[in-house]
Amino acid sequence: MRYLDDINPEEFSEWFDTVIKEAEIYDYGRYPVKGMGVWMPYGFALRKNIIELIRKEHDSKGHEEILLPLLIPEDLLIKEEEHIRGFRDEVYWVTHGGLDELDVKLALRPTSETSISLMESYWLNSYKQLPKKFYQIVSIFRYETKATRAMIRLREVSTFKEAHTAHSTFEDADRQVREAIEIYSTIFDQLGIPYVISKRPDFDKFAGALYTIAFDTVMPDGKVLQVGTVHHLGQNFSKSLDVKVLQENGENDYVWQTSYGLSDRVIASTISIHGDKRGLILPYIIAPIKVVIIPIYFNDEEKKGVIEYSEEIRNELENCGIRTVIDTRTELTPGKKFYDWELRGVPIRLEIGKREISSKTVVIVTRDELKKKSIAREKICESVRKEGEEIDKRLRERAKKKMEEKISKVEKLELTMEYGERVRGIIEVPWCGSEDCALKIQERTGIRVLGSPIEKPEWIKGKTCPVCGRNAVTSLRLAKTY
Amino acid sequence: MRYLDDINPEEFSEWFDTVIKEAEIYDYGRYPVKGMGVWMPYGFALRKNIIELIRKEHDSKGHEEILLPLLIPEDLLIKEEEHIRGFRDEVYWVTHGGLDELDVKLALRPTSETSISLMESYWLNSYKQLPKKFYQIVSIFRYETKATRAMIRLREVSTFKEAHTAHSTFEDADRQVREAIEIYSTIFDQLGIPYVISKRPDFDKFAGALYTIAFDTVMPDGKVLQVGTVHHLGQNFSKSLDVKVLQENGENDYVWQTSYGLSDRVIASTISIHGDKRGLILPYIIAPIKVVIIPIYFNDEEKKGVIEYSEEIRNELENCGIRTVIDTRTELTPGKKFYDWELRGVPIRLEIGKREISSKTVVIVTRDELKKKSIAREKICESVRKEGEEIDKRLRERAKKKMEEKISKVEKLELTMEYGERVRGIIEVPWCGSEDCALKIQERTGIRVLGSPIEKPEWIKGKTCPVCGRNAVTSLRLAKTY
Repeated sequence: MRYLDDINPEEFSEWFDTVIKEAEIYDYGRYPVKGMGVWMPYGFALRKNIIELIRKEHDSKGHEEILLPLLIPEDLLIKEEEHIRGFRDEVYWVTHGGLDELDVKLALRPTSETSISLMESYWLNSYKQLPKKFYQIVSIFRYETKATRAMIRLREVSTFKEAHTAHSTFEDADRQVREAIEIYSTIFDQLGIPYVISKRPDFDKFAGALYTIAFDTVMPDGKVLQVGTVHHLGQNFSKSLDVKVLQENGENDYVWQTSYGLSDRVIASTISIHGDKRGLILPYIIAPIKVVIIPIYFNDEEKKGVIEYSEEIRNELENCGIRTVIDTRTELTPGKKFYDWELRGVPIRLEIGKREISSKTVVIVTRDELKKKSIAREKICESVRKEGEEIDKRLRERAKKKMEEKISKVEKLELTMEYGERVRGIIEVPWCGSEDCALKIQERTGIRVLGSPIEKPEWIKGKTCPVCGRNAVTSLRLAKTY
Repeated sequence: MRYLDDINPEEFSEWFDTVIKEAEIYDYGRYPVKGMGVWMPYGFALRKNIIELIRKEHDSKGHEEILLPLLIPEDLLIKEEEHIRGFRDEVYWVTHGGLDELDVKLALRPTSETSISLMESYWLNSYKQLPKKFYQIVSIFRYETKATRAMIRLREVSTFKEAHTAHSTFEDADRQVREAIEIYSTIFDQLGIPYVISKRPDFDKFAGALYTIAFDTVMPDGKVLQVGTVHHLGQNFSKSLDVKVLQENGENDYVWQTSYGLSDRVIASTISIHGDKRGLILPYIIAPIKVVIIPIYFNDEEKKGVIEYSEEIRNELENCGIRTVIDTRTELTPGKKFYDWELRGVPIRLEIGKREISSKTVVIVTRDELKKKSIAREKICESVRKEGEEIDKRLRERAKKKMEEKISKVEKLELTMEYGERVRGIIEVPWCGSEDCALKIQERTGIRVLGSPIEKPEWIKGKTCPVCGRNAVTSLRLAKTY
């Protein structure tokens, strides 16, 4: 199914680069360090609203925000063996302060499991303090050797929300993993980003974790983007950093931990998944400007009344807490203004002319459908809010439907070969559950294994693993990924 | 003049370290990199409220928030000669990514004049875009060789608000300096932080600026803390980074710039200036918890009613947007709870017992005065807000009065010798205006020159410069500083 103005999969990459530049979201490729860009005012405001939404969901579940130092000394970062093995090749090192060489090299944080565990060893004493849930929103750094990409594969990931939790038992950490999945689902649902949740194969879990659960979405070009991960860390870090508490049974024991992260990719996918050929379509809930008013007049006499009426409406909307802008530029035609604000994805446009004044109405146009409708002036706040909610609902449903169309169930590996030409998106195959077969499937198809659903799917009943022929116990998802 | 419970000047340093630790503001000295600490949940919430206050003042004057990369390549940082000369000894350098040595060394931003100017060279084309006001709130890094101090002298300054503006003319940049002074005055007034505003001597201005204006406050130990600076940058950076726009006269010319900054020191001074021997006294306007309710009961029967009534009041306050906590801990006596929340500086305490239920009242106690008063339950939100405003007014006035007492006017340099034993604070001497005499005053007294007031003071009329004997044209402020 294709919608009017849908982005062509082949053109997505160019579309993305153009739209983030022209809508003044993120200046990328001009700052003279590869993989690092600049959040421009409009993009910063969008990012801020998305961060606030993320904050709210974490705060409401008892997470406490903190701020840890950026620099992690080498001897701290290497405490957990698996962890440093996973990150060693992509850590930036500070070696000098002024003209002095430092005694201990300092890493730019690639993530903060080691430093939060160190602080927990001071802060936590008793099971009575548990569960304890911290988070911070910071920049992290990865010396990516692959091609970088604005907001998607960066060397400075400038929007990284990392949560770190501590628990008395394995089971409580497991429960926390489920809570994190719930929190992330709520966040993505509000942004209208569809997703599948997969348990990553062991060979692709977070360095230092017992297991990793990931949220993946499908971008308009059919490639899959990992947008969030949740890790059960077991006692790996608590043992390495000596985070012990007095347990209920009177003994001192190591805590159980989880961590989970979101990044700039949440913003990148919000932009990509809803956009169309005209530019951005921002969900009402996080749009920095919710309403733009375009005054329409044909002479100076009309102008005065139209501007006055527009200002009244703007003030009324602002008083209702609805961020509204009037485009009073005189050098542009209304048509040119429409084009401008459509590019920026403002969800609601109000057109106001002579006729609206006399009929006490305004013309309302939603960014996703671009249909005109007249609404009563006296109910302006209520109507705008209702339209906003409906836009978000439509965006969410449309995105979900599109993604479902891009998930194909396949029983024979040969069929995955069509992938890339015709299918795109995610392929699901029956799977026996062995890591060995998963690796073979990845090798034979050349397509990356995302992992298996967290609940056993119905459709694999009676199906067999395409590698070993044993009965399938679950399915395995495959995709070309970012 | 001394107030009950005032911190002794000699004990201030210890008081500060103890209170930020025990009130769980900022964990300092345990994280294994010197000069870098951790914002704990309560401290983070305080920091967030202060940041929001700072944001609001900048946004309301048309500043746009952005986010620039942390890393500045060496060849960019050294473009402006004076600037790099000022910062060369205190820049941290990233030299390696993974196991590779980088082609170009990357500095951890010590400040962002060079990178914003580079971006302005892309973003700004015409005088019609001017004035343009950007700001960001980020971590900056300085390899301090002096003794570090929590929140006051850090190697990671984790709360740095830096504003950067561009203008068509010298005069408009001058006007912007005045606007910045106004914005900072409003911020400090709201926080009840008293200040003097001084033009720094040329030998102490920001590296790369034409001139620097600074806000200084006096800490409880009598030492002066610089809490904000405003710089007129002239065309120094715009010429080095080639930031040209089409001017109104049709010619391309370099823009004029200003920059101004605030740091963690705003939080440190809010804590220090209002605190007393019992701990923090947070201004109501930025307190993370505005009200704590202590339920008081003597048996289980009383407990039920008291807790219910307390919850009703809490809900009512929360519905009014007033962040309120009930301390329901059973293992602590009310007295111990009082002590706990006084340490944390919660501005308003409500005590609720059997008597309050029957008389439909609550007992209200403000943190600064600790006097009990009974108020009607039905007007709870209104009364709390009013008390909050009055606390802030009292804190502001008390702090201002204390600071005024610590400014001494002196005509002969010999008298400054008493400083440190008796006087403490700021000394003002008449001054002829010559940099040479300022340097001599600094050398002879061994006390740092802060600079001169931005408006010529009345009292210097007929007075002479204590070095050269010429007529004074203004005064010069001296102090022991952090």
